[in-house]
Amino acid sequence: MIDFSCDYNCGCAPQILEALTAANERQHVTYGQDAISARAKEKIRAAVGNPEADVCFLVGGTQTNATVLSALLRPWEGVISPCTGHIAVHESGAVEATGHKVLTIQGDETGKLSHAALEAYLQGFYADETYPHMVQPGAVYLSHPTEYGGLYHADELRAIRAICDTYGLALFVDGARLAYALASPETDVSLPLLGELCDAFYIGGTKCGALMGEAVVFRREQKGFFTAHKQRGALLAKGFLLGLQFDTLFSDELYFRLGRNGTECALALREALRGMGVAFRPESGSNQQFPVLSAAQLQKLDGKVGYEIWHRLPDGGAVIRLCASWRTTRADVDAVLCALRA
Amino acid sequence: MIDFSCDYNCGCAPQILEALTAANERQHVTYGQDAISARAKEKIRAAVGNPEADVCFLVGGTQTNATVLSALLRPWEGVISPCTGHIAVHESGAVEATGHKVLTIQGDETGKLSHAALEAYLQGFYADETYPHMVQPGAVYLSHPTEYGGLYHADELRAIRAICDTYGLALFVDGARLAYALASPETDVSLPLLGELCDAFYIGGTKCGALMGEAVVFRREQKGFFTAHKQRGALLAKGFLLGLQFDTLFSDELYFRLGRNGTECALALREALRGMGVAFRPESGSNQQFPVLSAAQLQKLDGKVGYEIWHRLPDGGAVIRLCASWRTTRADVDAVLCALRA
Amino acid sequence: MIDFSCDYNCGCAPQILEALTAANERQHVTYGQDAISARAKEKIRAAVGNPEADVCFLVGGTQTNATVLSALLRPWEGVISPCTGHIAVHESGAVEATGHKVLTIQGDETGKLSHAALEAYLQGFYADETYPHMVQPGAVYLSHPTEYGGLYHADELRAIRAICDTYGLALFVDGARLAYALASPETDVSLPLLGELCDAFYIGGTKCGALMGEAVVFRREQKGFFTAHKQRGALLAKGFLLGLQFDTLFSDELYFRLGRNGTECALALREALRGMGVAFRPESGSNQQFPVLSAAQLQKLDGKVGYEIWHRLPDGGAVIRLCASWRTTRADVDAVLCALRA
Amino acid sequence: MIDFSCDYNCGCAPQILEALTAANERQHVTYGQDAISARAKEKIRAAVGNPEADVCFLVGGTQTNATVLSALLRPWEGVISPCTGHIAVHESGAVEATGHKVLTIQGDETGKLSHAALEAYLQGFYADETYPHMVQPGAVYLSHPTEYGGLYHADELRAIRAICDTYGLALFVDGARLAYALASPETDVSLPLLGELCDAFYIGGTKCGALMGEAVVFRREQKGFFTAHKQRGALLAKGFLLGLQFDTLFSDELYFRLGRNGTECALALREALRGMGVAFRPESGSNQQFPVLSAAQLQKLDGKVGYEIWHRLPDGGAVIRLCASWRTTRADVDAVLCALRA
Repeated sequence: MIDFSCDYNCGCAPQILEALTAANERQHVTYGQDAISARAKEKIRAAVGNPEADVCFLVGGTQTNATVLSALLRPWEGVISPCTGHIAVHESGAVEATGHKVLTIQGDETGKLSHAALEAYLQGFYADETYPHMVQPGAVYLSHPTEYGGLYHADELRAIRAICDTYGLALFVDGARLAYALASPETDVSLPLLGELCDAFYIGGTKCGALMGEAVVFRREQKGFFTAHKQRGALLAKGFLLGLQFDTLFSDELYFRLGRNGTECALALREALRGMGVAFRPESGSNQQFPVLSAAQLQKLDGKVGYEIWHRLPDGGAVIRLCASWRTTRADVDAVLCALRA
Repeated sequence: MIDFSCDYNCGCAPQILEALTAANERQHVTYGQDAISARAKEKIRAAVGNPEADVCFLVGGTQTNATVLSALLRPWEGVISPCTGHIAVHESGAVEATGHKVLTIQGDETGKLSHAALEAYLQGFYADETYPHMVQPGAVYLSHPTEYGGLYHADELRAIRAICDTYGLALFVDGARLAYALASPETDVSLPLLGELCDAFYIGGTKCGALMGEAVVFRREQKGFFTAHKQRGALLAKGFLLGLQFDTLFSDELYFRLGRNGTECALALREALRGMGVAFRPESGSNQQFPVLSAAQLQKLDGKVGYEIWHRLPDGGAVIRLCASWRTTRADVDAVLCALRA
Repeated sequence: MIDFSCDYNCGCAPQILEALTAANERQHVTYGQDAISARAKEKIRAAVGNPEADVCFLVGGTQTNATVLSALLRPWEGVISPCTGHIAVHESGAVEATGHKVLTIQGDETGKLSHAALEAYLQGFYADETYPHMVQPGAVYLSHPTEYGGLYHADELRAIRAICDTYGLALFVDGARLAYALASPETDVSLPLLGELCDAFYIGGTKCGALMGEAVVFRREQKGFFTAHKQRGALLAKGFLLGLQFDTLFSDELYFRLGRNGTECALALREALRGMGVAFRPESGSNQQFPVLSAAQLQKLDGKVGYEIWHRLPDGGAVIRLCASWRTTRADVDAVLCALRA
Repeated sequence: MIDFSCDYNCGCAPQILEALTAANERQHVTYGQDAISARAKEKIRAAVGNPEADVCFLVGGTQTNATVLSALLRPWEGVISPCTGHIAVHESGAVEATGHKVLTIQGDETGKLSHAALEAYLQGFYADETYPHMVQPGAVYLSHPTEYGGLYHADELRAIRAICDTYGLALFVDGARLAYALASPETDVSLPLLGELCDAFYIGGTKCGALMGEAVVFRREQKGFFTAHKQRGALLAKGFLLGLQFDTLFSDELYFRLGRNGTECALALREALRGMGVAFRPESGSNQQFPVLSAAQLQKLDGKVGYEIWHRLPDGGAVIRLCASWRTTRADVDAVLCALRA
């Protein structure tokens, strides 16, 4: 069965497995102070275009979000997130477990936070005389792409950054699926732009070709973060395992090529499905597609294509999630189309 | 250079790399709900001899300690640990970051907590009329082997368990280097004994042949722990990576064989060094050895053998740490001896 | 100026000040272990009709909510609250600072949580396959009366309790203004009913005639709570100060009489305003009234009656809050009406 | 019975009760934004000699310590305290409950931290290569007087401040019994000196004549602290109650006079006991005295004088604590001496 149900259900790009095999017998300095990790950080700084950037490798997305946000916030501050933000829904209260409230704002149908909604929220917050009794906004959390495949544009991020500057907020972007966004023709957001606008963002490895691992990029040195991420259980004893994966991903443009594969497969699938009259809720220009299928269409997929029910419709149909990834092939895409046409 | 400085500076046992390579292209159910993880848990339950045991895989030791302890404790409780316990010293306050104090008791020279010291502490605690104003003891933390290679015996653990029962404390054993203890002829503590006596303990992977990963064993079902370990950032999206490593380690007795290799190499080294008149501070029957070397002896090692200075002595000598591991060879041991005899 | 802007802007009932003056020179056992506190607890147990109840005095509402909830919840659990619940809005993230998420549900226009909405939320929660990745519901928080003067009825609380039983949730009721609810002819909820249905609730002192202080009532002994409330900074060294106030409030029905005064004044005001054609948003049967006044009416009050703007209306009018309290007089009520009729 | 067992077992100075009675019927702006609180803050700023100081009133000592320290520290930092510091022993883990470890250093026999011990600790900390894996020192906590009546001198505090500057640490002084230290002829530490050297300190009310309340003094504006102390449950709805007490204490030198009474009584008692050949363990120049009494002497006190057993001696005697306070009289002192001479 072809599995489009998610983008983190198999191992890693073969180049990473090769590098791992090659490095397995060698001895490495521990806790990420090794030469491979240093080289990977250098490559990421170069790709981001900021030689001052502080790069740090963590194991997974939830721990990255909670660790970075707790380092950016003061105890009386919370983080603003769209209602559908991963930290607000699917991280088991990891941010709250560090003592901070997630302050939610309604996003658009793709889970994006608009600068207008952010501005309105902040104006409303400070217009309320009781605001000192409420959690103070301290940072903004966005995911790019969003959990629904939404993509920010450069001007949207610039507008959000400007608001953050006005209100003294840090900007943090969750890039769990960043490779797919960077590869989309439907957004002009680049690594250097994120490096310029974000106090911190992360370059997702787990969903973009690595076994596991996320590379956090702080715009400036983040003093104390080594201890902070050790404290949150996010420091690998064998830190070279993470460095090695990002070293490989940032060699020969692998990270970008893997992202391109996922996004191109997804957009080819979208194009073909549109041609079959299929609608999408929401529309996405990234590796995740959310087609609206009838009961009959779903039946055609069953047993042939793995997918995730996003939400069921009263008529027996459903919005489903189809994820293309770094390892999806055009043959996989064709198999989906073939099944639907059968 | 032969590196005896630590036991977590290279990759994993070749069998694990093979299993990983074989599984890399296949698709796995996510978040540890996959078939390989289920099989690994079954093997661990069998090895522990407790079909009711609740087994859970986490990524590293610090996060395991903090996650398990925070699940065992109530907010007003702390965990008793020897002063040298890893949670008390080298985990950046991970336990405190979950809101709990580490209550330290002086251990012996190998870092072991004696049941007599524990009993005395608890009697003293409750004899002090002001005890309700203090953090209440809620659990006992031990490491086996300890950070200094100390090994508990079965009767010592039974005595500690009895005290825990009397005072209503949970018992948690940190087994980051458990394979080496299980292989030592100098202790009779077995996996089934740990399973019987501990509310929870963990079987260390990172330092015992895996790339990373620790298998927590709860004596009984630990309701809510899936969410708890997701919350602490300890749940891998690609959970099969951990299951696969423990599945391999618990096939063909690999975990025990790897442990035996490390401990036998260490004891051979100890024997030979003793023959050369070298003293140890402290004595250890596990994979870590702490010989007292003179300045001249240290010089002989320099550039040939990697070691860690444990603490310097006024005469220019030092107590050093030499770690054998799952991948140490007899040739490595000979190389150390050879260097010292040169 | 007559001040109806809030119910916590002056000191305490004269009986309390007298008792305080009488006790000021005597010596009392510290930390609430004194005889006056013991007597107060006994009186509260009698009023609640539960000789097993565990009664504890804390200083203020926010600390009470956070301390009790953190004692009722496990680390991976959150507390369900109506969106307008005090813990969700005006407590600066006190609950989150103890590591727990506040899970909000839309209440009705008076801020009440309906059992139907609660049931729907819980059914939806467990119907979502990803629920183990979310904060687990562990308790329900209600305020009675609500922040908008809403009053639960006995059958509503019984229905909520039944749902809590089904889903294994603790029920906690914030009674910051409980005296006013107990006095309202528009609800049949009594102290014994709260004692029967709630795992914990508190009898508010601060807003009901005391200088400060809230009496938490646990249905059963809450082991460890003394240490827990010391830990959260909620234990007064001179605990007799709190015991003394509740001893006074629960002598000669004072607590009930004070509540009756506040609610009767408020309802008299409501009646008279209704007679003047004034609408209320929402309607309230408690000590807080939310009349909708025109710009002209507001102008008539300015300088004569203190009130709080609840929210402004586009036409220049506003919904305002008028709070009657334990010390409001019928003359005060008449002064408001007089001002409006001028 | 004359009670010397502690200094917080009766109410407040009569002037405070008078002020409270006078203010009881008036209406006050809530949450400490009232005119009386503003005036009290102004008086404290004047007494400290720092017009920039940020003054804030909290209810009790434990909540003050935890709230201030959590505002001064970053998540990966801990607070250095002498082993006997109140935060390290008798606050139920309040600091740890905010996520921070208390890093203890052996103090002298009066519980004072010497600058030499502090410097040695810090040098040792940073000399250990593994220090990034440990909780980072972020602040120093001292109490003046200490829990054992110890008194710092100006040059000692200056030396500690210099070390704090070198290592980037905040300095926080717990002044729960500050009035008694300020009155002691055995120290030259003044309010302006504390204001100059400390990032924050507090002027204790609870043990120095108030019903309850502690006045925190930050050297500079502490942005966000209003929300922080609301979050920790330390903000009184009727904030004027605290402001009023400090307004009274800082009128007509009352705070200093109350302190002088306690300390003078204690020193008179010490003098007389010395004359009777009684030793002290430790010696104290403050309101708490720790005489070593024989079994026979203890028997003479029993039933006549309340005292606290500090620790029992093998010969049946004990070190006891005798606390003089703002309300102790010379007759009380004489009664103790009389009992012993009987």
